[in-house]
Amino acid sequence: METVSENRAFGGVQGVYRHGSEACGCDMTFGLFLPEEARDGPVPVLWYLSGLTCTHENAMVKAGAQGWAAEQGIALVFPDTSPRGEGVADDEAYDLGQGAGFYVNATQAPWAAHFRMWDYLAEELPALVGGAFALDMERQAITGHSMGGHGALTLAMRLPGRFASVSAFAPIAHPTQSDWGRKQLGAYLGDDGWEAHDATLLMQERGFDGPVLVDQGSEDQFLDLLKPEALAEAMAARRQEGVFRMQKGYDHSYFFVSSFMEEHLSFHAEALYAR
Amino acid sequence: METVSENRAFGGVQGVYRHGSEACGCDMTFGLFLPEEARDGPVPVLWYLSGLTCTHENAMVKAGAQGWAAEQGIALVFPDTSPRGEGVADDEAYDLGQGAGFYVNATQAPWAAHFRMWDYLAEELPALVGGAFALDMERQAITGHSMGGHGALTLAMRLPGRFASVSAFAPIAHPTQSDWGRKQLGAYLGDDGWEAHDATLLMQERGFDGPVLVDQGSEDQFLDLLKPEALAEAMAARRQEGVFRMQKGYDHSYFFVSSFMEEHLSFHAEALYAR
Repeated sequence: METVSENRAFGGVQGVYRHGSEACGCDMTFGLFLPEEARDGPVPVLWYLSGLTCTHENAMVKAGAQGWAAEQGIALVFPDTSPRGEGVADDEAYDLGQGAGFYVNATQAPWAAHFRMWDYLAEELPALVGGAFALDMERQAITGHSMGGHGALTLAMRLPGRFASVSAFAPIAHPTQSDWGRKQLGAYLGDDGWEAHDATLLMQERGFDGPVLVDQGSEDQFLDLLKPEALAEAMAARRQEGVFRMQKGYDHSYFFVSSFMEEHLSFHAEALYAR
Repeated sequence: METVSENRAFGGVQGVYRHGSEACGCDMTFGLFLPEEARDGPVPVLWYLSGLTCTHENAMVKAGAQGWAAEQGIALVFPDTSPRGEGVADDEAYDLGQGAGFYVNATQAPWAAHFRMWDYLAEELPALVGGAFALDMERQAITGHSMGGHGALTLAMRLPGRFASVSAFAPIAHPTQSDWGRKQLGAYLGDDGWEAHDATLLMQERGFDGPVLVDQGSEDQFLDLLKPEALAEAMAARRQEGVFRMQKGYDHSYFFVSSFMEEHLSFHAEALYAR
């Protein structure tokens, strides 16, 4: 693993690291914020999964999470959203291929060779960061924005016991019934396995064994694609422990994400430190 | 004036606006964060001047100021760092021309036609925003990063009574004695008037009639160009009310800026609300 950069931030260190990924068959880059407390021993971890077109960097510089993570003594991991590189398949559309991995293991050509973001995030990257940094892998939580909210919710529900809590900012909530989902699931998976990557269907079928927090802006320009009402209905119908909040006037931007980041960090800290 | 965008953020609005500038002879763009309190009446204003290569946008999305401004009920203005456009002179170097206005009124060709950032920030933009938005122009403060720290300090000292307080993150502190300064002051001003744009010389000569806060990272990669020791010496020698802080381990990045933004907002709020 190679250190791309390390910047002192909020008493800790914001690092960027690159490594050869077995799951993705290419080099992958991620950001990691370690609070000051990591000098003295392992600290809890919050995963932040990003949305369409993002790299590891966008949330790292725009979501305003490090200050609150420092206050809570929690590390942040900012993975990339897809495999990347010259040998990696891509598409001209912003919402397919590089920058748009959708957190699945692709089975279809030309994607199957590299697009294995599920394995990368469920197995490879946790093992890598858990071995290399002072992280308490018994205390993990996960969040994400848009496509990353979809990833956070699906990983949390399909890996019971892994995460103490899950939250999402404007997640793609019902991709099997949306143009943000049907196109990509079809391309990556063909006709099979879609239901394993739909937060609403997973909520209906199994739910999450811990608290859930979802924030959604009422003026989000992508409401028709996100379908938050399907997830809200599924959460309530299941009696899922958690909160779904419609935030009046907010849109889909990082200004929305950063506005509520403090509350998401507090939410996860409570669950992480109760473990 | 044209609205480029408006995003709800921290209970208020982060806007971006464009207007024809008389001072600069071109269209200029700026960011303005208005906290919720601005609905009920004028709120105090903190100006944030940015560094080399930045537009109005960098600090707006990376400095993490809006949350703290919202908490304090203070508006933020994010001006651009130079005139811009096809008809505006430029240079291949990152530190001259567009993106590098240095907050002066140029007197030399080819810069004199548009590069009048001093007049733009001392007169035109305050009048514009004061007339168009719910801002209490009797309560202004100013801050900035790097070249913007230079701009904040020089504007504050040369406009006594205008600002309640001034702060700076890693300012270009002594440009008449630095390669970040001699090149640009020579290009824009020729041989005259340099001393009016050097924070250290102004501190020696007149100081500031209010509190000053300066933060500088000890691992800043540009320490030789910034010359913080000259400003620290001048502040102490003058018995200037204020604080100069050397922050161990921090570099020149926005991670440094955002790490101390809360304290700068608190510092300015105390001075603004005492007016």
